[in-house]
This record gives sequence, C-alpha cells and structure tokens, in this order.
Amino acid sequence: MTNQSRISAQIAFLTEADKLKSVLRATTLCDASRRENSGEHSWHIALYAMTLAEYAIKPVDINRVIKMLLIHDLVEIDAGDTPIHGDYDPAEIAAIEERAADRIFGLLPAEQGKEFRALWDEFEAAESDDAVFAKSVDRVQPVISNLESGGVSWVDYNVTVEEIESRVGVKVKRGAPAIWEFLKAQIDGWFEKRA
Amino acid sequence: MTNQSRISAQIAFLTEADKLKSVLRATTLCDASRRENSGEHSWHIALYAMTLAEYAIKPVDINRVIKMLLIHDLVEIDAGDTPIHGDYDPAEIAAIEERAADRIFGLLPAEQGKEFRALWDEFEAAESDDAVFAKSVDRVQPVISNLESGGVSWVDYNVTVEEIESRVGVKVKRGAPAIWEFLKAQIDGWFEKRA
Repeated sequence: MTNQSRISAQIAFLTEADKLKSVLRATTLCDASRRENSGEHSWHIALYAMTLAEYAIKPVDINRVIKMLLIHDLVEIDAGDTPIHGDYDPAEIAAIEERAADRIFGLLPAEQGKEFRALWDEFEAAESDDAVFAKSVDRVQPVISNLESGGVSWVDYNVTVEEIESRVGVKVKRGAPAIWEFLKAQIDGWFEKRA
Repeated sequence: MTNQSRISAQIAFLTEADKLKSVLRATTLCDASRRENSGEHSWHIALYAMTLAEYAIKPVDINRVIKMLLIHDLVEIDAGDTPIHGDYDPAEIAAIEERAADRIFGLLPAEQGKEFRALWDEFEAAESDDAVFAKSVDRVQPVISNLESGGVSWVDYNVTVEEIESRVGVKVKRGAPAIWEFLKAQIDGWFEKRA
C-alpha cells in the first residue's frame, strides 16, 4: 500500500465515521432539548472515563478504555442504536453488528483495521478489566442524562427502578461500584418523588 | 473532600460538559444535513488523532493528544465557537476562554481540575509536540467536512484557497505535513472546479 492509498483509506474510514452523528439514541441531552446522537455520546463517555477512572474496581489502562469508547458505537452506523430498555433480539443485533464491524473497520489499512477491531471485540466481550470499566461508564452517562432531563427515556420506556437495577446497576457495579452507590440514592429519590 | 462530595463535583463537571453538544460550529456534517456541534466534533477529532497518529511530524504521546482533544473545546460552553474563517478579536476571545476555563475546570476536585487545566493550557500554547499535533488534527477535520459537504463553510465565509493555506495549511503542516500534502491536492481540485 502506498502512502497515498494508505492515508486515503484512513480518511475514508473517518468520513464514514461521520455518520455516527446522525444515529439517534433513546436518551436526550441533559436539558431535554433533543435526543442525543451516538457521536456526541461517544465523546461524552470518553470524558466520563477520563474523569472517573479512579473508581474502576480493578486497575485499568485508561488510555485503552478511552480508545475503546471512541470506537465502541461505530457499528451503529449500520445497526442503529439498541436502547437499553428496548425490546429486541440480542442474537440478531449481535449478528448485524458483527457484519457492521467487518465493513467499517475493513475500510482501514489491514493491520490498523485488525487493531481497532480487536479493541471493539474486547469491548463487546466485556471480560477484560478495561472492557468491564468501559461498559460501566457507557451505562452511567444515560442515568445522569435521565436524572437531569426529567427521566425522558425512563418515562418513554416505562421503566421501573428494578429494571434499572437489573439492566444498568448490575453492569455499573461490576466495573465501578462506588459510582453506582452514588447514583443509586439519586435514582431511588427520583422514583420515590414520581410515585 | 469526602468521597461523596468528590464524585459529586466530578459528575457536576460532566453534566456541565453536556452543554458542549449545543454549541454549533461553522462546518456541517459531511452530508450537509445540519451544522456540527462541538461535542461530536471533539469525538471525531479524537478518532482522527487515534487513526492518523503515525503522521505526527515528531513522536507524540497519542494518549495525551486524545485527552487534550477531548477537553479542548469545553471553554466554548461559555465562549461559543470561533469559526476559523470568522472575523473576531483574538485577545478578547482568549480572555473569555480563560475565564471559561477557570469556571469549568474549577468544577472538578482541585487537583484534577489543575491537571485538566494544564492540558488545556498546553493545547492553547501550541508549543509541545503533543499540542502541535493536536492542533493539526483539529484543523484537518473541517477540511474533510467541507470537501464532502460541498464546501458549506468555505462558501458561507467566502474563503479563498490562499486563506485556507494561511489559516489551515500552516497549522496542519506544522504538525502533520503528510496529511496536508494529501489534502492540498483535493482542496486545489475543489477550488479549480468551482472557478
């Protein structure tokens, strides 16, 4: 691969990535003015990771965590966002996301595509300490958006406090229990006020 | 600072950061469907840095570059975006951004706020190898958006190819000359076709 075709492939990947800014999520901005997109969400959770690294349950390489979070949602360009509280077939989504990963990371020069893909596979597997913490952070940010926005996606999906515990709490606790402890009191308060 | 007030300060900072998603830039998405916001832009250029690190003119610590780019635009929450080709007083903008940095990084626990602020100061100073490369990447992405979108912000600001060279090219070349060489041919082609 010449230098020109190498850089051309990298720019093609980065231009394709632009489409993530048009993938809408279930959650809104904190001020509830509009739904959040997966591009700005990816930025926000990378900043979350950078800010909250000290709460990882096991020591993590925060730089790998940040890189994972920067690429973790790219497959949504083909697969769309899968709302945490939505109704879907996980196996079907996983298959669509696998094909999306093949296509999107396949735009890069081969060895770089393999490196990014390995990082995405690691995030999806949610087994390494870095991936477990990254997954926690990915679950924390929508909770804060909901607490700030008046619970837009909790209301839309008619979510109970028990469902938040089982779909969100379990994952946050696994990677960052101190953050969950902090959030849990606020979530309980929100649901009590609403009852 | 107790653990609870520490985490509370960090979450307050991250919630404030959400506002960056409502700061609009001069450039549009690649498909020209709408103007880009500074939150999604920050994600995109962190991904640019991660993908294009090999073109840095001097060896950089890419992890520091990425962190710099994640926080570099937060001051725009107070100061707004300053378009590259816009008409403004640099000293006035700098003063507003300094006050914004005091306020926004000041939301964090003191030692963490100092660490983030130092990284922002380093980016702004544009002297270290990491900051020079970060600044290059920040200038590359709007060029690609313009080439893809039909030159929306170039047309809006009535920009000449010489102005792109002096306002964008100089900064990209300083940190990543190989990327500029690749872009330059495409920019020239765009302006020739338009003439």
